[in-house]
Amino acid sequence: MVKKISVDTAVLTDPSTAAADIDRCLNTMLYESRPVYIGVPVDMSHRQISGEGLKTPLKRELPPNDKAQEEKVVNEIWSMVKSAKKPVIILDGNTVRNNLTAEANKIAELTGWPYLTTCMSKGGANEELPNYSGVYGGGGSIEEVRKVVEDESDFVLWVGSFRTDFNTGELTDFVDEKKTVDLQRFFTKIGGQKAKSSKVEWDPYPLPEAAKEKKELKQDFLWAALSKIIKAGDLVVGETGTSAFGLAGTWYAKGSSGYNQTIFGSIGYAGPSFTGALKAAKEAGTVNRGILVTVEGSLQLTAMCFADLLKLDLKPLIFVLNNNGYTVERLIHGKQASYNTLPVWDYKQLCTVFGPEHPSKYHGPIKDDSELHKGECFQLVELVLGELDAPWSVGQVTASIEAFNQKHAPKEAGTSMGG
Amino acid sequence: MVKKISVDTAVLTDPSTAAADIDRCLNTMLYESRPVYIGVPVDMSHRQISGEGLKTPLKRELPPNDKAQEEKVVNEIWSMVKSAKKPVIILDGNTVRNNLTAEANKIAELTGWPYLTTCMSKGGANEELPNYSGVYGGGGSIEEVRKVVEDESDFVLWVGSFRTDFNTGELTDFVDEKKTVDLQRFFTKIGGQKAKSSKVEWDPYPLPEAAKEKKELKQDFLWAALSKIIKAGDLVVGETGTSAFGLAGTWYAKGSSGYNQTIFGSIGYAGPSFTGALKAAKEAGTVNRGILVTVEGSLQLTAMCFADLLKLDLKPLIFVLNNNGYTVERLIHGKQASYNTLPVWDYKQLCTVFGPEHPSKYHGPIKDDSELHKGECFQLVELVLGELDAPWSVGQVTASIEAFNQKHAPKEAGTSMGG
Repeated sequence: MVKKISVDTAVLTDPSTAAADIDRCLNTMLYESRPVYIGVPVDMSHRQISGEGLKTPLKRELPPNDKAQEEKVVNEIWSMVKSAKKPVIILDGNTVRNNLTAEANKIAELTGWPYLTTCMSKGGANEELPNYSGVYGGGGSIEEVRKVVEDESDFVLWVGSFRTDFNTGELTDFVDEKKTVDLQRFFTKIGGQKAKSSKVEWDPYPLPEAAKEKKELKQDFLWAALSKIIKAGDLVVGETGTSAFGLAGTWYAKGSSGYNQTIFGSIGYAGPSFTGALKAAKEAGTVNRGILVTVEGSLQLTAMCFADLLKLDLKPLIFVLNNNGYTVERLIHGKQASYNTLPVWDYKQLCTVFGPEHPSKYHGPIKDDSELHKGECFQLVELVLGELDAPWSVGQVTASIEAFNQKHAPKEAGTSMGG
Repeated sequence: MVKKISVDTAVLTDPSTAAADIDRCLNTMLYESRPVYIGVPVDMSHRQISGEGLKTPLKRELPPNDKAQEEKVVNEIWSMVKSAKKPVIILDGNTVRNNLTAEANKIAELTGWPYLTTCMSKGGANEELPNYSGVYGGGGSIEEVRKVVEDESDFVLWVGSFRTDFNTGELTDFVDEKKTVDLQRFFTKIGGQKAKSSKVEWDPYPLPEAAKEKKELKQDFLWAALSKIIKAGDLVVGETGTSAFGLAGTWYAKGSSGYNQTIFGSIGYAGPSFTGALKAAKEAGTVNRGILVTVEGSLQLTAMCFADLLKLDLKPLIFVLNNNGYTVERLIHGKQASYNTLPVWDYKQLCTVFGPEHPSKYHGPIKDDSELHKGECFQLVELVLGELDAPWSVGQVTASIEAFNQKHAPKEAGTSMGG
């Protein structure tokens, strides 16, 4: 089964080939930057194998490009760059996964072109650049962004594009391939034909109406409030669904980093991923503080990660949006359906159950955020929200899907997004 | 990926064949008594399909055997039965899974032969029969049982055998195939050649020394104490590992039923399985009370099932053996290893976190079991045990594996069991 989700697999049944099998899998993993699987049978785990392979270091760098081919591609891109009158740059998910955000930020800084991120790559772009222009997500974008990318631009430098249902507005992205250069790990895709400097004429962090209201707490309040909380040295992880979509509209300070996954719609991934990533980043010294944003429906699947966060003393700051059920699912189908309703938990006791020996703090709905900045222990912030409250972008994508379906699909067809 | 673990699969992409695909999968599922997979794409879920297939009922019974073949097999078995001087019957896992325990119990009652169960089939045998003789599990059996099955018997009627690492003592079972008749869903296996009535000359529920001690609480105390708690109408589910092994030595009252899985060693399975099975059994009216026995290491993987048990008002009785880490793993490798140590939880608060609106009770180590019998709400019993305390049978299997390895395998080989 694992072969379907691995680029290479080996089950070590022969001591004479085990070392070579391990080296081959590790080199493939590094080359492809994708998972491999190595199975170690119990009765093999104590066998002695040759150490000869250790003399050859693993290959940690990609082989160089073919010189002639590279020159041809660079020239083609350069001629498009020179003739472009309305160019834009999109930093997308594969730039982050391939660890090339510094290079992308440099291009954005040097050119001054409108610089966009996507939901998946949120946290990769330097949002303090004057030309940072917001988040492109097909029909889920703010109208100014959608217009400049899809309608007005004549050249799109799409660095590490990653078109998926969750990343680009349920495939409601319509960017002409002919004007696009897509830079990927193993290939560069050049569309065709036809610039310089720009000033952002819209607010990349528009404050939704809901965030301005003072009556009832709304999700959109949080996304704006977090802009004041995230600072350099923070690692921000957003759960699949509303959290990742909502965080796309938050200002990430330069020197902070972000992570979410918009590839497979698997809710519950965020807590354990956050725990592992924060442990690794703190050990590597690359992060000061971890911030997790999740929703109670997702948290209920993997809340046990709180026990590890406490045991490992990682002092996270965690926001739980409690909207009494699966909100995105309610918006799509079954607003009052019993399967969209969840057991009611008492979140303020979670930390004392999962780590009674460790210090932790629970905060009710945010009133004053000064305490949150200290980060001296595990902090849990619960926001109690309306059942159908969601980030504005989710509403927009839902409407966009609806419009698309009405236009293209048979009457009874529909599409869905998790969370 | 799912093809590897399903007997049939269908992804419904064509409305004209969807109905036939669904019927085929359901009939295969009923025939094989194994899982099938039906994928419904989002844009197909609202399509109309033909209802014609609904006129043909699903096949809920296996086709009849070939008459001549059946007669030949029955005669062969009958001749072995007649000439047997020391026969035994083992009711094994596939009897329970094929819903044939009533038939097996009838044979055991009529013949009076020593009647054994295995770990996997525990809960299937009528343990109130005078010839009920205990649990056979290879090297993990009590010596009297091992001797009568392996050394002394001349005929073994093994009903639905299921030889796995977890079920039959890490494959330390040595029953001569020549004296064995194995009855399965799709075949009968008859070994070869050569009785009547018997009296059990040993105690099928031997009280281990640990259960008699009054100083420190030991697991083996629980297995004996549960013999007084389990009654008709109870459904008992044991977690993989120590719980399933320990429960094998508990007396199950006639009319109670049991379930565990000794096929794949996946800890954490028990809580959610128990929740689903109890919900179904209560709806079907076949069970009065559900009893779950688990260990804290397994519970920490899927403790969220408590929220559903509370929400669904299933009023379970749950025993959590808290021995501060992965005990079986400690016994095999790494007695003090950090990876065998778990976060410390506060179990007495679990129910108020997962279902603050529902009544629940927490009991410290059992002193008086009268309260447990009432079953008027969710009851959680926590037993705090020594780190290396395990059921006697686990110690015996471990020793048995060790002896086997010393004899058969290269010096550095080993084998493992989860839990």
